[in-house]
Order: sequence, then C-alpha cells, then structure tokens
Amino acid sequence: MSQISVVMGSKSDWPTVKETCQILDQFGVDYDKQVISAHRMPNEMFAFAQSAVDHGTKVIIACAGGAAHLPGMIAANTPLPVIGIPGQTKALGGMDSLLSIVQMPAGIPVATTAIGVAGAKNAALLALQILGINDHDIQQQIVAYRQQMHDAAKESSADLD
Amino acid sequence: MSQISVVMGSKSDWPTVKETCQILDQFGVDYDKQVISAHRMPNEMFAFAQSAVDHGTKVIIACAGGAAHLPGMIAANTPLPVIGIPGQTKALGGMDSLLSIVQMPAGIPVATTAIGVAGAKNAALLALQILGINDHDIQQQIVAYRQQMHDAAKESSADLD
Amino acid sequence: MSQISVVMGSKSDWPTVKETCQILDQFGVDYDKQVISAHRMPNEMFAFAQSAVDHGTKVIIACAGGAAHLPGMIAANTPLPVIGIPGQTKALGGMDSLLSIVQMPAGIPVATTAIGVAGAKNAALLALQILGINDHDIQQQIVAYRQQMHDAAKESSADLD
Amino acid sequence: MSQISVVMGSKSDWPTVKETCQILDQFGVDYDKQVISAHRMPNEMFAFAQSAVDHGTKVIIACAGGAAHLPGMIAANTPLPVIGIPGQTKALGGMDSLLSIVQMPAGIPVATTAIGVAGAKNAALLALQILGINDHDIQQQIVAYRQQMHDAAKESSADLD
Amino acid sequence: MSQISVVMGSKSDWPTVKETCQILDQFGVDYDKQVISAHRMPNEMFAFAQSAVDHGTKVIIACAGGAAHLPGMIAANTPLPVIGIPGQTKALGGMDSLLSIVQMPAGIPVATTAIGVAGAKNAALLALQILGINDHDIQQQIVAYRQQMHDAAKESSADLD
Amino acid sequence: MSQISVVMGSKSDWPTVKETCQILDQFGVDYDKQVISAHRMPNEMFAFAQSAVDHGTKVIIACAGGAAHLPGMIAANTPLPVIGIPGQTKALGGMDSLLSIVQMPAGIPVATTAIGVAGAKNAALLALQILGINDHDIQQQIVAYRQQMHDAAKESSADLD
Amino acid sequence: MSQISVVMGSKSDWPTVKETCQILDQFGVDYDKQVISAHRMPNEMFAFAQSAVDHGTKVIIACAGGAAHLPGMIAANTPLPVIGIPGQTKALGGMDSLLSIVQMPAGIPVATTAIGVAGAKNAALLALQILGINDHDIQQQIVAYRQQMHDAAKESSADLD
Amino acid sequence: MSQISVVMGSKSDWPTVKETCQILDQFGVDYDKQVISAHRMPNEMFAFAQSAVDHGTKVIIACAGGAAHLPGMIAANTPLPVIGIPGQTKALGGMDSLLSIVQMPAGIPVATTAIGVAGAKNAALLALQILGINDHDIQQQIVAYRQQMHDAAKESSADLD
Repeated sequence: MSQISVVMGSKSDWPTVKETCQILDQFGVDYDKQVISAHRMPNEMFAFAQSAVDHGTKVIIACAGGAAHLPGMIAANTPLPVIGIPGQTKALGGMDSLLSIVQMPAGIPVATTAIGVAGAKNAALLALQILGINDHDIQQQIVAYRQQMHDAAKESSADLD
Repeated sequence: MSQISVVMGSKSDWPTVKETCQILDQFGVDYDKQVISAHRMPNEMFAFAQSAVDHGTKVIIACAGGAAHLPGMIAANTPLPVIGIPGQTKALGGMDSLLSIVQMPAGIPVATTAIGVAGAKNAALLALQILGINDHDIQQQIVAYRQQMHDAAKESSADLD
Repeated sequence: MSQISVVMGSKSDWPTVKETCQILDQFGVDYDKQVISAHRMPNEMFAFAQSAVDHGTKVIIACAGGAAHLPGMIAANTPLPVIGIPGQTKALGGMDSLLSIVQMPAGIPVATTAIGVAGAKNAALLALQILGINDHDIQQQIVAYRQQMHDAAKESSADLD
Repeated sequence: MSQISVVMGSKSDWPTVKETCQILDQFGVDYDKQVISAHRMPNEMFAFAQSAVDHGTKVIIACAGGAAHLPGMIAANTPLPVIGIPGQTKALGGMDSLLSIVQMPAGIPVATTAIGVAGAKNAALLALQILGINDHDIQQQIVAYRQQMHDAAKESSADLD
Repeated sequence: MSQISVVMGSKSDWPTVKETCQILDQFGVDYDKQVISAHRMPNEMFAFAQSAVDHGTKVIIACAGGAAHLPGMIAANTPLPVIGIPGQTKALGGMDSLLSIVQMPAGIPVATTAIGVAGAKNAALLALQILGINDHDIQQQIVAYRQQMHDAAKESSADLD
Repeated sequence: MSQISVVMGSKSDWPTVKETCQILDQFGVDYDKQVISAHRMPNEMFAFAQSAVDHGTKVIIACAGGAAHLPGMIAANTPLPVIGIPGQTKALGGMDSLLSIVQMPAGIPVATTAIGVAGAKNAALLALQILGINDHDIQQQIVAYRQQMHDAAKESSADLD
Repeated sequence: MSQISVVMGSKSDWPTVKETCQILDQFGVDYDKQVISAHRMPNEMFAFAQSAVDHGTKVIIACAGGAAHLPGMIAANTPLPVIGIPGQTKALGGMDSLLSIVQMPAGIPVATTAIGVAGAKNAALLALQILGINDHDIQQQIVAYRQQMHDAAKESSADLD
Repeated sequence: MSQISVVMGSKSDWPTVKETCQILDQFGVDYDKQVISAHRMPNEMFAFAQSAVDHGTKVIIACAGGAAHLPGMIAANTPLPVIGIPGQTKALGGMDSLLSIVQMPAGIPVATTAIGVAGAKNAALLALQILGINDHDIQQQIVAYRQQMHDAAKESSADLD
C-alpha cells in the first residue's frame, strides 16, 4: 500500500520518470510505478484511478507526451490530487504535452510541473511536499533537501573558471 | 439507430457544434447529439464509446476545447473512426485544443479538423464523405454540395464593390 | 489560522481569483486572501512565505500574470505545496504567465493550473483535494461536487436546441 | 485497383510514409503509393484526385511538409475522404505543416493526424478504421491490433528497471 | 489585358484586399480582381494560373487565410511572380495563413507580405516596384509615394499631444 | 553591372545563401554578392541601397537571421523590389527571423521567402521570375527548370523501396 | 539639450509611448519626443542616432511594432544605450515586435522591455535608473516611486470585496 | 568594489555567461561574478540585490533559463539597472526564459537581451554602454569595438567562396 502512485503513458517515458522515482527513493517514501496507457489501456486506467483511494494512495503522479490525456483522465476518476509531467517531444518540444495537461477545464485540476526532466523531479518533490503537510518527517526532509541544494548552488560559484 | 454520433464536451461547445448538425440536417442523414464530458462524465463516455459499434454507429464526431481529451479518449474505446473538432479558446485561440486532439500517439488516430466553426462544418462533411464511400447517394450529395459552393464562390466576384 | 492562503500579484487579478475564493467559500474551508506583489512587495512576499508553516497554513495559492514570479518565489521560500494560477494577458493570452509559472527548475515545484478563470477554480479544487487526503469530510465534498458537475453536464444535453 | 492510395509530396517524406505502408502491409490491405508533388506536379495531382473515385479508391492518405498543400488540394478535387499527415520540419518542427493541413476552410475537410511518424502510423489505422465500417474483417483486425498494443503496453511495466 | 491580377480565396477577404486595389487605383495601373477559391474552384484556379502569361499578366497578387493554399498553388502553375497576402484569422491571428503561404518548398516561391491590411497594401506596392524595374514612370511614382509617406511621418511629430 | 545583388548580414549566412547563388549560376544570370551587416555596417548598407538603382541593379536579395533588419532597411532605401530570406536560428528555429522580415509596416514591402535553405533557393527563383517578366529567355529557363523538377519528382516514385 | 530622447516609429504608437512620457514628466527629467520611422524616414533616423552623443543625449527610448527595426537600427548608429519597447499588434499580439527588437545579433544590444503599455512605463523607469547611477537625486526618486507602488499594492488588499 | 556584477541562476549557465565575462575582460572593466539561484538561494539573492548600491555596483547582469525569475527579482530589490539574459532551453528553445524575463509588470523593468550567447555578449556591451554615458574612455572603447566589428564584417565578403 504505497502513498504515491507513479504512472506513465509509455515505457518510452521511463528515462524521464526515472528521475521522479530516484527522488522518491532518496526520501525513502514508498511508491508503486507502472505503465498505464490512456489510449491503449483505457479500462485499466479507469480501474486504477477509481480504486486509488481504496488502495490507500494519497497522491498520483502521471507522465505523458503529445496529446497527453493520462493525467487529466486519471484526475477525472479520483478525488486524489494528480500531478502531471509533460513529456518533452521531438516535433514541438513538449508544448503539445504541456497544453494537453495544464489546460484542464474548470472542475478537474491537474497539478502540472515543467516539461521533461525538471518536471519529473519536481513532481516527486511536489508529492512529498503534499504528504509533508501532515508528515513532519517528510517536511523536514524537504527542508534538508533544499538546504543541500542551497549549499551546492552557493558553492558552485567557486567552480566558475 | 443513427449512423453518426455527435458529442461535445460541454454545452458551451454547442454554438460551434450546431454548425455540424446543420450540415447533417441539410444532407438528411440521421444523427444523435449529446453532451458527454470526458472529465465530468468519464463512465458515460466509456460506455458511449464502447457500445457505439453495437448501436450501429459508423462515425463519431467529438468537439472539445482546452485540454481536449474527449475525441482521443472516445477513439481509444472504439474501432470506429472518430473526428475531432478543436474548440476555439479565449486565452490561446484554440492552439491548446488543436494540439490536445491532433497529437495522438501511434495506435489511436483522431481525424482532426480546423479550429472552431470551419472545423465543425468540416467534421460533418468528413463524416458524410466517409459514409459516402459506400453510399452512392451521399457521395452524390457531396458532389452537389461542392458544386453549389463552387458556384457561390464564382459568383461572389461580382460582389466586389 | 487559515489552512489555505490565497495571494495575487495585483488587485487586477481579483476578478480571476474571486473564482478561487467562491469555491473555497462554497466548501466552507477557511482561507485568507491578500495582494502580495513579488516585484513591489518583495520583503512582504518573503516574510509571508517564510512564516507560512508557522502560521499553520497548509496550501498556498498564488495568481500572477506576465513575468509571473510570485508563485515560484513563494515556493522557493516554503516547504508547503504552492499552486500557481497563470493570469490571462492581453498581448500573449497568458502564454507568458503560463511559462513563467510552470517551467520551474528542478528542486522547487509549482503546481500549475490552467490559464485564467478555469485555472482559478481548479486551484481551489486542487487545494481542497490536497487537504482531502487527510480530511475525509473535504474529500467527500469533492466527490459530491463532482457528482453535481456530472449531473449538470449530463442534463445539459436536453438544452441543445 | 487499390482501396487506399498513399501519396507524398516528395521522396524525402518516404521515411515517414514508410510507417504508413508497413501497417497497411501488416493488415494485408492493398494500396498504391507514389510521389505526387502539389507544386511540381500540379496537373498530375489534379488528375490523380479527380480520377480516384473512378479508380475504385476509397481513402486517400497524403503526407507533406512545410507549406503542405497536397492533402488539401487533393481533397478539393475528390469527394473521397482524405487523410493528411503533417511532415516534421527542421525549422519549425512541423507546426507549419500542421497548420497548412488542418486549418482548411469550411467545405473541404482534411482528416489530419499527428506530426511525423506517429501521424504516419495513425493515417494507416484511420484509413483502416474507415474501411472497417463496412468490412467486418478489417474492423476485427483493428480490434486485434489494439489488443496487441494493449498487451504490449501492459507488459512493459515489467521492464521498468 | 491587365498587368496585375488580384485574386482572393473568398469574398470575406475583400475588406483586406480592397486596400490592395486602392493603392493600384491610386497609381493608375490597370488590374483585374476576382474571387478564386483554391478549394472550391480548383479548375478555375489552374486555368487562371496557367493562362496568365498568355493574358499578358505580369504579376499576380493572391490573398487567402487559414490553410492558405491559393498563392502557392497559383505559383505552381505559372512562371510569373506571385505575391501572397496572409489573411488575419480569428483563432490564430494569421499565423496559420502566414506559414501556409511563406513556407513553400524549394522550387516554387511565393513573395509573402505581412499578415492582414499592412500586407495587402504592401502587395500592391511590391507589384508596382516589380513593374517599376522596367517602367520608369511607375518607379518614379513609388519614389513620390514614399516621399509623401516620409513627409507625413515627419510632420506627425507635431501631433503628439 | 549585375541585375541581381545578393547580400547577407553575416558570413555565417553563407551556407544558406550559397544555395541562392548556385541557382543564379545555373541560370547564367550575373549577380554580385557581399556581406553587408545592417548593424555593423549601417552606412554601407544605406549607401548600397540608395545607389542600387543607379548601379543598374533590378532586384535585391537579402538574407539575415534573428532580429533580421537587413532586408527591410534596404527596402526602405530603394524603390527596387527586395527579397528577404529568413535565416534559420538555433533558439527559435527562424521564427524570429521570419517575423522580423515579413511583418513590415504598410509602405515598404519585403518579398519574404521560406526560412533557411528552401527560402534561399526560392529567393533566386523569385528574382529570376521577376526578371523573366521582361526577359523571355529567363522566363523560358524557369519553365524548363520546372519541367526538370517535375520530371525528377515524377520519377522519384520508382525509388520508394 | 535633453538627457533622454523618446522616439516612436509611427504616430499610432503614441497612446503607448504617452505612458513613457508621463513617467518622465512625473520625475521632472527633460526629454524630447518625436516620430522617426525607420522605414519612412531612414535618413532622419540615422542622422538622429549618429548625432545623439553630440546633442548631449544619454539614453534613447524607441518604440515600434511588427517588423520593429527602429530600436535596433538606432542602436547600430550610436554608442548610447537604447531601450526598445515592442508595440502590441493586432495579428500576433506583439510577438513579432518583441522578437524583432530583442533578438539582436552579438555586438549591438537593445535593452528590451515588455510588450505594450507595461513596457512603455518600464522604458521610462529603466532610463531613469540608468541616469540614476550618476544622479543621486533621480535614484532617490526611483526609491520613492517604488515605495509608493509598494504602499499602493499593500493597501489594495483592503479593496478585495 | 566592481562596477558590474554578473550573476547566473545555475552553474549550467556559465558556458553562456562566460561570453559576457570575456567581453568585460576585453574592455578591462572590473566585475564580480557568482552563482545566485533565485529559487535555491532566495535570501542571498535579496541580500545581494539590496546591498548592491552600497557596494558601489552600478549595473547588474543576470542570466537564467526556464521560469527565469532571477533578473526580475533582483530588479525588484535594487534601484540599479538590471540586464537580463534569457538562457537557451532544451524543450522550448528559450521562449520560456525570454517571456519570464521580458514581460515584467509596470514598475520594475529588466533590460532584456537576446536568447543565449548573443544575448550574453550584448549584456556586457549594454552594461558598458551604460557606464560609457559618464565614462568617456569606455564609450570610446565601444566606438573602437564597433569599428573592429565593422571592419571584420566588411572584410568577410572576401571569404565568400
């Protein structure tokens, strides 16, 4: 019974989504991950989304590219918060994925992050920040993670030539 | 038992979709029309799409705007051809609708028409052209309809000041 | 001590953000609202963000337009989840606001919703869905709210023509 | 006498269009293929389009890039359904091809698929779905093809690390 | 026997194209004007383009919007220079028209001007500048026209406040 | 005393502009070519443009990228027709070059061709078509050139697998 | 002898540029203003730019729309800092103006502000901030101006319903 | 005590910002450089910006990519002129960086240069031109630098072929 479910529309999204999972691993928060294609596995997608609350899931992360319907269609089938990662695409850079995910109609939000790898990492962090509202330990880990980022950024000035 | 099913994601699409229906009326081809919201009525959407073949539907026309998931999700649930009309939108003109509908992944096509009213009319004509492959009468009506457009366009030169 | 803080970059965002507040009112969840301009009130912005955890805030909603730095800069100063609403803009429709909010670098996510009014409503719903993870009553209200949307959408077919 | 005609504006479109043909081959549906440049072979283009009905063609697939006039100009010269594949382009990714194909004026639709290879595959599948309306065997093949895609997608979860 | 032929894809382009004609009137250069729809009158379009040289036409000006195929298809059927005016469009502002006209493949150029009214005026002036290469009187009129623009622009500083 | 002047904003445009020159070479029409930077050599640019008529130049071709001011500023300083080639750019593909060249204000047209190499070739052909209005030999060469393109395109069907 | 010169490409830019001038008036810094069209008054433009240093001008502000060459061409003719305001445009919102101004090649910068009125105001403030480097009084006025903006923004929270 | 401060949002911006520094080196103007991340080092960013005047800084140059908040947030905390360099980005080419930097609201300008390397060089030159207003030596260096560019551009014509 994982708190976070990570899904992607295709195995080809895995190099992006792997970044999500690595952060979740780093925080030691349990999650499950799977390929669920909105267009090739529509019934599984609905079953997944409609049973998520009962499975004890608290946050869902979904990555898809192009006409990226996965995050929005999962969101339409669960009252849980859904985080959408727009996959980078060859032809249009990911603008198609971004608009397909973020421009949801009133009623069914998808919490959209940046296109590609940055968004994949941030989806994990956003999920953790959401869990952190009621989990002081996770929130403290976020604070510590940011401190590390802060220190690394600050020290990197020394590396300029 | 209509040959063509016309659906739209919201009643607010009706001023656009009405143009589709007027052409179908003009051709005397039976159709049914209804609001099916991908995000507010997901189960009805799937039931609709999955039963369309059994209901004798031959072509489905779906209009939606913004993160327009309706045409693609219907297409994922039926082997029938699905025509998608991208609704015009206030913020981005309809570029969001267009990319959400047309950029479908390999495997599940949506036959996309132009943004807005022109696309709504063309969705009807495309459905009729598809039926016309095996319905000589409809194909002849298409030919006649084009002849009328041709004549009207030709004669309109006389109206230039 | 509100669970949700709603901020906007300028009073001119209020017609958009009012939609957020109306949904929060409807759900009976307490919130505070204020104008905090990232560029005109930077110190207040930091003070606000850095004290949010201590004030008992759980989710922050921030709306801004153009070079919309408010959501991201608040996010950089709190471990709480921050939801960003891209304001619609005259020149570029809101594409500027959207990219300024959603394209956050790895490390500091902003949960971005749609441009304009739809995004404003969805920001409220997303905040409620986040609170609903640990508040069964709010989650049930989300379910009920969706049921109402579902019914209204379904019944709207009768209004076509 | 093929049921499907596949045309492309230039031999340089062949790596894309080959994907269309491979699916048609896989389904065992006969088709003919040729280069017809709208701008270099306009008379042949018109002759091709205007005789397509008489040649027994049922669906035409046309791929072109940039100012992609081929699908629309063929559509203007036949009552058959025409499917347009927007070629990916170096400078603008294929946004130029997409808009040139999809934004047809009211009266003459082009059934537009996604930019590039995904669109090329989907053009074949869309043509087959259209034929499948009146050809139970082809429709069953579509169902089986989708089942294979479904199974492959489902099993791919096992390959994530 | 006019030196300049002005065509437009639809009567709805006339408010734009009227600006072209007013400049030609002002210069006293004869021209003919007509609606020729690429998609509704394809045969007339080809007949027009293919006979233009024989009719003594020297420059063709064509305006179209959306999937604007008219200028490029005329250009493909005549060795005369063709000037294309991208019509402004409701959904995408005219970006669709512009890319459909300007992104011609190697071999068949269209001399593209700005979107909308500025482009319509400039199409006339460009045609006149082309004729002016071998017509000293027209070239002198261009010089005089520019002098007037120069003087008007210069004097307009006095009107600030 | 060349009939055609070819200029480019930077030596880095030469790989593109070389395509222009190769076609002019092929047609045996004399031309001169040079780097004239609008921003680094403004006085030379004006001297060049303002003396072009006196030098017997008939058509000017100018290529530039990014904030591509060269074609428009030359056009502002000569009554001769100016053809603009938008250079492809790394960041934005050439959309910046295209808009900087094509969106000229009413009064001063630039005959814009496609982005990059296709536009470079077409700039040559457009210049030749312009000269061909009064030079029967060049016009015949255009016709022959097109016949060759036609034949090559037609024969290329044989090369599809 | 004004420290700041404000120029615009057309009288139609005045409603935008007036906002620039009102801020300069408010600060009591002398400036001159005039219409200088890059395309209709090229010689005046060069004379203006090349003599600006000798006239004692310290900063130049230039507004233009569409293929907005004015700021960049002035910048090419003076070592003074030039601030460019992209005018909002009907067809493309000002994206054309923005790219034409900001995408200057290496060597000749234009300090670009936002599209339209916000950019017009900011052009004035940027010029004042530049003068403020060596003019303590102006810098203090900037600080005071910001304090007023700060106070007004802060107080505006009270006006939310 | 440097006159110019150069900051970047991440060490990954250094290959771009190095171009800025090389020009400053070439002019012999002292500057300091450091990584200051708006999102990872917000307090340092504010401390840096708020103390810049006291440190004797005259111009600040800031480079950032994606949701590029650094230049605008620094500008909000100092009355000094701030120059923003939009970093080129993988997914969207830098359009996200550009809009995040240039579309600042009225009140707080950022002097924006071109995307990527050209903008990095121009940021240095713009800073020098600003200093040059009151430093005759720097202004003369700018004039000399331009003369060199001029000569190099002019001579490069000899290298064509």
